[in-house]
Amino acid sequence: MAGLFITFEGIDGSGKSTQARMLAETLGDAGHAVRATREPGGSPGAEEIRRLVLEGDPERWSAETEILLFTAARRDHLERVIEPALAADEVVVCDRFADSTRMYQGLRAPGLREVVDQLHKLMIVREPDLTFIIDMDPSKGHSRAKGRNGTEERFEDFGAGLQEQMRAGFLALAQEFSGRCVVVDGDRSPEAVAGDVARIALERLA
Amino acid sequence: MAGLFITFEGIDGSGKSTQARMLAETLGDAGHAVRATREPGGSPGAEEIRRLVLEGDPERWSAETEILLFTAARRDHLERVIEPALAADEVVVCDRFADSTRMYQGLRAPGLREVVDQLHKLMIVREPDLTFIIDMDPSKGHSRAKGRNGTEERFEDFGAGLQEQMRAGFLALAQEFSGRCVVVDGDRSPEAVAGDVARIALERLA
Repeated sequence: MAGLFITFEGIDGSGKSTQARMLAETLGDAGHAVRATREPGGSPGAEEIRRLVLEGDPERWSAETEILLFTAARRDHLERVIEPALAADEVVVCDRFADSTRMYQGLRAPGLREVVDQLHKLMIVREPDLTFIIDMDPSKGHSRAKGRNGTEERFEDFGAGLQEQMRAGFLALAQEFSGRCVVVDGDRSPEAVAGDVARIALERLA
Repeated sequence: MAGLFITFEGIDGSGKSTQARMLAETLGDAGHAVRATREPGGSPGAEEIRRLVLEGDPERWSAETEILLFTAARRDHLERVIEPALAADEVVVCDRFADSTRMYQGLRAPGLREVVDQLHKLMIVREPDLTFIIDMDPSKGHSRAKGRNGTEERFEDFGAGLQEQMRAGFLALAQEFSGRCVVVDGDRSPEAVAGDVARIALERLA
């Protein structure tokens, strides 16, 4: 079986992490070799960089330095986990990848999205084969998302207005990268969402 | 008085750190506001990144990830220390800067120098106004340089053949950036070298 690089994206509480886990299980049950991973982090080195970025004073790094650190973490994750797995014909299921960085940094300030893109083009290159955007009205987001990870609150605790902007940002990315992105309605039971996701992924793997 | 960005480069044992310190003192005595700093490191954030890069297994980071991390450290150092000092019309005297990265990575593997240059063009931009390359026959290098900094030995403990390549690398950079680089004969007493360095720096500041 050929390797495939699948990513999950979406706002807080959209259930993307649950969906990533459920798809990994389903594909494993179907006989695929699956490598489940996530960002930021995903490899020991990337986790160390992630801790360096996310802990401490939110003002300690400029946006540009932070993008460089996240690009370093992604490069490590890519080299140590994603590329070797794909080379071994495994299916990589990753909770968040470059689209999250594109969306978050694009909202932070004009011009930062361009920095993200130029660094990606230079140091990452790889794009997913298939990206599920789990779409949901932020007001209906699973309440457990808030405050779940203390160190990530600087990114996640943006409030309802920004959650709307993030949703719009992910939908814009789905259009920009329409060749690989599939928008899935996340406002249903996890099992119903997982059914759609599994069907699409298995079609691509067939 | 206008700000000026002065860097010192050279192989281990060339005395560049001593010369940077002596120049900072001389310029301070002459009434200039001086900011003495160094790389890798130079700001609290950059020091943290430096520790992450230099400690542990030398194979833990790929060359590309390491270049990204050093670029992040340099960006932080630039934003937090160098640019504010220059904006306040201070003279920045920095022990190593981007030329060290260009030289070391260029020796490590073909293509890495190009990665360094592209990242510099995108994320650093700033070049020194004046760079002193303290040149010396490696076999005459000050013996105290070896083993001085345990965590930096992976870069510094290359042996005599590589020291020759590094010397040639710095001399090539002096030609490539001839507008800002001055090669100074380091095979003399520190005071004699410092006299030349101070004269050239004070001429530029006059």
